[in-house]
Parts: sequence; C-alpha cells; structure tokens
Amino acid sequence: MSRERTDELGRKGYRIIQDTEAFCFGADAVLLADFAQAGKNDRVLDMGTGNGILPLLLEARDKGASYEALEIQPAMAALARRNAALNGLEDKIHVTEGDNKEASRLFGRGSFRVVVTNPPYMRENHGLVNPESAKAIARHELLCSLEDILREAAAVLVPGGRFFMIHRPARLAEIIAGMRAHGLEPKRLRMVHSFADSPAEMVLVEGVRGGRPYMTVEAPVIMYREKGVYTDEVYRMYFGGEAPLPDGEEKA
Amino acid sequence: MSRERTDELGRKGYRIIQDTEAFCFGADAVLLADFAQAGKNDRVLDMGTGNGILPLLLEARDKGASYEALEIQPAMAALARRNAALNGLEDKIHVTEGDNKEASRLFGRGSFRVVVTNPPYMRENHGLVNPESAKAIARHELLCSLEDILREAAAVLVPGGRFFMIHRPARLAEIIAGMRAHGLEPKRLRMVHSFADSPAEMVLVEGVRGGRPYMTVEAPVIMYREKGVYTDEVYRMYFGGEAPLPDGEEKA
Repeated sequence: MSRERTDELGRKGYRIIQDTEAFCFGADAVLLADFAQAGKNDRVLDMGTGNGILPLLLEARDKGASYEALEIQPAMAALARRNAALNGLEDKIHVTEGDNKEASRLFGRGSFRVVVTNPPYMRENHGLVNPESAKAIARHELLCSLEDILREAAAVLVPGGRFFMIHRPARLAEIIAGMRAHGLEPKRLRMVHSFADSPAEMVLVEGVRGGRPYMTVEAPVIMYREKGVYTDEVYRMYFGGEAPLPDGEEKA
Repeated sequence: MSRERTDELGRKGYRIIQDTEAFCFGADAVLLADFAQAGKNDRVLDMGTGNGILPLLLEARDKGASYEALEIQPAMAALARRNAALNGLEDKIHVTEGDNKEASRLFGRGSFRVVVTNPPYMRENHGLVNPESAKAIARHELLCSLEDILREAAAVLVPGGRFFMIHRPARLAEIIAGMRAHGLEPKRLRMVHSFADSPAEMVLVEGVRGGRPYMTVEAPVIMYREKGVYTDEVYRMYFGGEAPLPDGEEKA
C-alpha cells in the first residue's frame, strides 16, 4: 500500500501509520490532546478515532489510563488497531469498529470517566464530490451529527465524568446549548486563533456530566507568532520544547 | 452633592456626571460601546442604563440612532437624565425610570432594532453588606436576573433585531443557552483578557432575534500589553488615538 506513510510522534518514540488518501492528523488532534486530561486508571473513550492518533498522544502523556477507540470506517479502524500494535499498546488501546451513534449500546451507560472527540465539523454536505470518501466522512456530518455525539457522550459518561471536544467556533452556540440539553455542563473553553488578531478557527471545550454552571474561558491558543512560525506554546504541544527563534532575533 | 464629579468622555466634548458613591462607569461600558453597533435611525434600548454612559458613548459614534435608557433606581435615572441634558441630547436620549423585567410592557413588543445591556453580573448575593445600595443593585442579580434580561430583550426586539451584552465568562453557558431558548441566536463573541496569557474576565456577545445558527468568535481583546499599559486597541477605545509607548521603547 504505497498510500501509507509512517510518522514519528515525538513522544516516547511513538509512531503512527497514516493513509495519505484518507485523513492524516492535524493541529486539531495535537490541540485536543493538549487540552484533554485523563486521570490514572481512567477509562477513556475516543469517539471517531480515525487512525487512532488521539489515544496515542494521550497515552504518551497520561499514564495509567486505558483507551477505547471507536471508529465506523473499517479501513480506518484496522489502521488504528495496527497503530496501537506498532507502539506495543494493544493492552492499553482497544479499537472497536462501530458507530458513534451506538456508543452507549456498544459499551453500556456510565461506562467511561472521560470522553474525547474530534468529530466531523461541517453540517453542510452539498457539493461533495464523493460523500463516501474517508475524508468526507471524517469532516462532514454524514454518518454522525453533533447531536449524536453529545447524546452518546453524555450517556456513556459516569456522573462527574469529563467530555473534551475540539470543534469549530461557528457551531459554538449549538455546542453549548446541546451540551447543556444533555446534562454535560460546559466548564472550560479555549479558543484557537491562527494569529493574535485573527478570529478563532477552532474551539476546545470541556464539559462535566451533571456539573454546576460555572465556566472558565482560558487564555487563547495563538498558533503562529508570525507567518509560518509557531508560538512557543504550540511548538511545545507538537515537539515538547521551545520554538527556535527566526533568524536574526534574540530572546527578550 | 459633593459625591458627584464630572468627567470628560473624550468624544465630541461629551461629559458625564458620576455619583462616586453609586456606580461609576468602567472598562465594561467602553468595551460594550466599542462592540455594539446601531444603524442610522435605529431605535436602541439600554436595559439598566445606570448613569446613562452607554447611550452617550454610542451616540458619540453612531449618528442618527435614538436611545431609550431604562433604569430602575430613581436617583440613577435622574442622573442619566441630567447627563443627556448636560450634552444637549434630550432629543436623542430618553430616560425612563422603570424595571427591566417590565421592558416589553413599558415599550411594547417588537419596538426596538437594537438592545444593549451591561446587566448585573453576579448570581450570588450572600454576604452583601447592603443589598439596597446602588452598587449592589448594579452588580448583583437582586432586582433582575439574566433570564429576565434575555426574555425582555427578545420581546422588545423586532425580528432580525440585534442584542449586545457584556457579561462574565463564568456565565457563558447560561448566556448562550438562555439566548437560544428565547430566540436570540448568538452570532458574535469576543473574549476580554487582561493579558494575552490570562483567562478571560469579560465576554462580549451579539445575538440576532431569529438568526440562523452560525457564530464568529473574534480576535480577543487584550487589555494590557504590560502591567498598567493599555494595548493600542484598548487605548483607542478609551481615547481615540494610539497608546504612548512606555519609557525607553520605540515603535517597531
């Protein structure tokens, strides 16, 4: 399969096989892994795991948790399974081929302490060339809506369990109202901007099942200090260290 | 009344009389006036006008609109009326002494194109020394809840009419869910942070009565570039120009 490539994750030597014709992980997975937290011995569900990037990134940092990775596309589920094996994590990351809409039936109600998800962002799907493509399914709400995600996430979480999602600001009102409607109280929000003076392009949200209303909006994530140069924070999310300064600049 | 002082507003020579024992306007009024927009000939309602600062700031920029300023505290309503007169704006700014909870009864349903409000922020009122003080009424939900504001704002707006509010991020989930419940679709959000790396302290929100779901989260407002030094944007909001640089610094 020449469409595949293997990338280093820069964490504990972990690597990931990606299908370049399907969906390769991007900044959203890195941002969500940074934002989400799993405690020791927590059971974590990743709804729509794709190639399994999120459990790998989380496992590299949050020791002791175990991961259930749910993926509806057979080829992607198989890839996620190979990625767990590639890193010797078959015991920690279990991949299930199945539908997010069926999560509570598949795993039982109240069966997870943590849910993470990087779901399809786009409500509209008109003009899609191929609505059966892996990319389209990952990006558009063809097989699974925001409402499905919120309902099932709330159902599989224990009371007090935590929900972490990355999504688009355009959907934020629906996200917040939908979370509340399903008893996932939004508690923490972080906006992601390309530049300090540009609109948000992504939003990170944490909810607590049955939490009381009180929200913190954290300092924004600014992706770039200038075109093509990550800020220190984002560089650290990707590579663990501090960003090199552009030529000719010195640290203040 | 020695408790009074008169301040310049730095706009068209407008001035404001403030009662230093009651509630003097702060950054929130300046931020909201910058965020809100009224079109020519729009009829604008300010729910809980206090000393009338918001209509003054808006009138200085948005020509042609007319303002109804609603205030429940008799002394504050009288002050707001004097402030309109002080600036020769009796024809443009009309002050009504009355209750936000009664806005739709007082003015009629669908009677405004724009509603602006800087309502009491705090839900809790335990430990208040004097719950009848003007400051306590302006800050705590003693006479008027968030729910009251959203219900009445939706009722007095025409379809397509716009709602602008400044509030606290802690209440954001309630704000967004409450706006949607009353048919005020949240369309625009702007977080206000003291510093680029600190949590948001205020949030600006715009809703459209009967709007379709799609939200923009704008670049954050950062108040200070360093302790005590406003950023250029905030300096411009206050004074119209660019912030002077701290001693020893040169413009890049």
